[in-house]
Amino acid sequence: MLGGMGCGVTMDLRPYIEKKRDGGRLEAEDWARIIPAISSGEVAEAQIGAWLMAVLMGGLDTAERAAYTRQMIASGPALEWPEIDGIIADKHSTGGVGDKLSLIWAPLVVEAGVAVPMISGRGLGHTGGTLDKLEAIPGYQAVLSPERIREVMAQVGCVICGQTEKMVPADRVLYDLRNRTATVPTVDHIAPSIMSKKLSEGLDRLVLDVKCGTGAFMKNLDDARTLARVMVDLGEAVGCRVTALLSNMSTPLGRYVGHAAEIHETLELLEGGGPADSRELVLALAREIVPDAALEPLLDGGRPRERFARMVAAQGGDLDAMRWPDGVQAEELVCDRAATVIELDALGVGLSLADLGGARTGDDEPPDPQAAVEVLVKPGDAVERGQPWARLWHRGGRGLDEARVRMGAAFRLGDPAEGVTTPLILERVEGQT
Amino acid sequence: MLGGMGCGVTMDLRPYIEKKRDGGRLEAEDWARIIPAISSGEVAEAQIGAWLMAVLMGGLDTAERAAYTRQMIASGPALEWPEIDGIIADKHSTGGVGDKLSLIWAPLVVEAGVAVPMISGRGLGHTGGTLDKLEAIPGYQAVLSPERIREVMAQVGCVICGQTEKMVPADRVLYDLRNRTATVPTVDHIAPSIMSKKLSEGLDRLVLDVKCGTGAFMKNLDDARTLARVMVDLGEAVGCRVTALLSNMSTPLGRYVGHAAEIHETLELLEGGGPADSRELVLALAREIVPDAALEPLLDGGRPRERFARMVAAQGGDLDAMRWPDGVQAEELVCDRAATVIELDALGVGLSLADLGGARTGDDEPPDPQAAVEVLVKPGDAVERGQPWARLWHRGGRGLDEARVRMGAAFRLGDPAEGVTTPLILERVEGQT
Repeated sequence: MLGGMGCGVTMDLRPYIEKKRDGGRLEAEDWARIIPAISSGEVAEAQIGAWLMAVLMGGLDTAERAAYTRQMIASGPALEWPEIDGIIADKHSTGGVGDKLSLIWAPLVVEAGVAVPMISGRGLGHTGGTLDKLEAIPGYQAVLSPERIREVMAQVGCVICGQTEKMVPADRVLYDLRNRTATVPTVDHIAPSIMSKKLSEGLDRLVLDVKCGTGAFMKNLDDARTLARVMVDLGEAVGCRVTALLSNMSTPLGRYVGHAAEIHETLELLEGGGPADSRELVLALAREIVPDAALEPLLDGGRPRERFARMVAAQGGDLDAMRWPDGVQAEELVCDRAATVIELDALGVGLSLADLGGARTGDDEPPDPQAAVEVLVKPGDAVERGQPWARLWHRGGRGLDEARVRMGAAFRLGDPAEGVTTPLILERVEGQT
Repeated sequence: MLGGMGCGVTMDLRPYIEKKRDGGRLEAEDWARIIPAISSGEVAEAQIGAWLMAVLMGGLDTAERAAYTRQMIASGPALEWPEIDGIIADKHSTGGVGDKLSLIWAPLVVEAGVAVPMISGRGLGHTGGTLDKLEAIPGYQAVLSPERIREVMAQVGCVICGQTEKMVPADRVLYDLRNRTATVPTVDHIAPSIMSKKLSEGLDRLVLDVKCGTGAFMKNLDDARTLARVMVDLGEAVGCRVTALLSNMSTPLGRYVGHAAEIHETLELLEGGGPADSRELVLALAREIVPDAALEPLLDGGRPRERFARMVAAQGGDLDAMRWPDGVQAEELVCDRAATVIELDALGVGLSLADLGGARTGDDEPPDPQAAVEVLVKPGDAVERGQPWARLWHRGGRGLDEARVRMGAAFRLGDPAEGVTTPLILERVEGQT
């Protein structure tokens, strides 16, 4: 039966493919065979492709997603924190433009008594990555050994670093295969992928920031709501308390978009200042984990700032050596009339940063951490003729023409009556039991 | 984008996978890229698996199936018959138990003025293969070169042989991949696969015998009707006149099931005798191609018998050396009471032949052409206590115990009121324009 499938291929996935193809369910014992076999290279890639698509088109229920997630977690060693008494928590954002909130959120909830072993990622497409931003700090080490992760947690109570080679190997294999087979866009693969990585951190609680809008992967509220509901229910099924906030990503979050500039904004926020929207959302996301803590005075009191500095130092970073702007020049974009800002599209801003060389674009060149887009207005703001609405921070004119055009297309002025200002936090989703 | 896909892999199928995944249509130009690329090994197998499943679960329309079929035909050289003035026709059966009708049908319609370049297949599962049956004739060559096919056609007007290495190579590649990825059971892959092979024969007309019942691949009338409709419409779309008969395969066709025994029945039928059901269906299938010919007197007149003998001789076979039974012994199964035959299940009979060693079972051992099941009654027949209802033709008792038990389970006696006798020909399907 397996003739011609190639060497190393010893498992026939067809009975499981057939179940999903024909509208059936995969039981826990099926998942216990499927995921380890795929992960260890025992299944022919043609069968994996067919299976991934059958799952995408056939769909999974919560119990199937939970079994899928458990098998992904079981594929590698999970982090465990027997030495920590309190709550272990994390936050996950589905990715947006100008979203630097993890950098504030982690030290803030640590000051409220929670431990945060945050495994984070790189930029993807037009969205920025937390690790890329942290690496704008000279010396910052995003890749740590499991031993070093444990040491930083013991010293500081939080760590923000990349996935180690050994963590959730099944997800690593499946992530690559999903990309290659056009089977990415379904909650049935996305939710187990995210949750397995997060739960491998040994969490008790998780808060999700599900972004919704032009600058997010979920463009509309229905899709965002579905992902949030699936993730919250999945968390419940696998024994982790998950809640989700659906937040607006039709315009960038905060004032700065760009790696070093977002560290600059992070420090402002950790000093009690910074843009109102970033502050509002980070406090709301912290409240999901520590609802009873007095978070505003805590943030304004400066201890999270200090905790952040300690974490950066523990990971080799030199915050004092961090400069922004450094070597880049600003070009201002100004309003051509008095009006109301109707739109400042997040996707356009994210892509403008890429024009300026400040984003990860898939080629091997590292992003320029100094490049940035500075957003000076928000939809709903009244502006005067000649008022600057954005600054493009460019290195010697690199990508400036493209960014200027793209920003122009992302920006729309109009009559106040036209613009419906969307709230920042659209909905909250919590467990059903 | 294509990194890690392996050497030789140069085409990214994802845009086409995404179309079917998201409910879209593949245009003719898409098919013109997809099928040649898969056929020539330019696509990673993981992507092929995902694409095959997206087609299965997403479905195709008639125009898509036609473009798919055309690209399959274009993957290799098609047969052409510029030297033949008349109609080129063929018959295709979806496979059943005891179905030897091609062997009678081909010489019969040739005598009515039609040319028949029939490319046929081997047994699959519990169903017999036309080529396996012909090879029960000593010396018969089922595998011919394209030149020899042309010569036999010129001499005899018909040929029954296997697919050459070069014919429809895309189907060969896809057939293997569909088997390995559990993407076989859909008309969207099956119909283009069958039609591309048939149309590569250079046909003007095709009649389909779509079998329906326990002994067929289509177990129920709805599925059989769908396949027939899809095939007929597909024929119309690609310029070949196709009609279909849906025929009953809940009990074996004719009296004999077994390779040499079916040649024996073939000769009886070609001499104007043989079982009534085989005779009725072969005449009906011939009428689909030559509606105006006086087929019954033609069959009874002996010229098709002679044409068959010429074809066998042209393909190296020695019909005079053909013996059945030869080296096998019969065991009779007898009725234990007077009653009416309610059921004699085709699948059970087909599997009983396999028990006796007479079917192709997937291991390398060739089937024993002499083994046979002889069916002495049909559903609806009244029987007496002690009356034989079947004979198992076995070689020295091989598989006899298993076959006896299986036959017992396949046979059911009852009250005449119980049994609804199904007609042999259930429906006819023709083109809509």
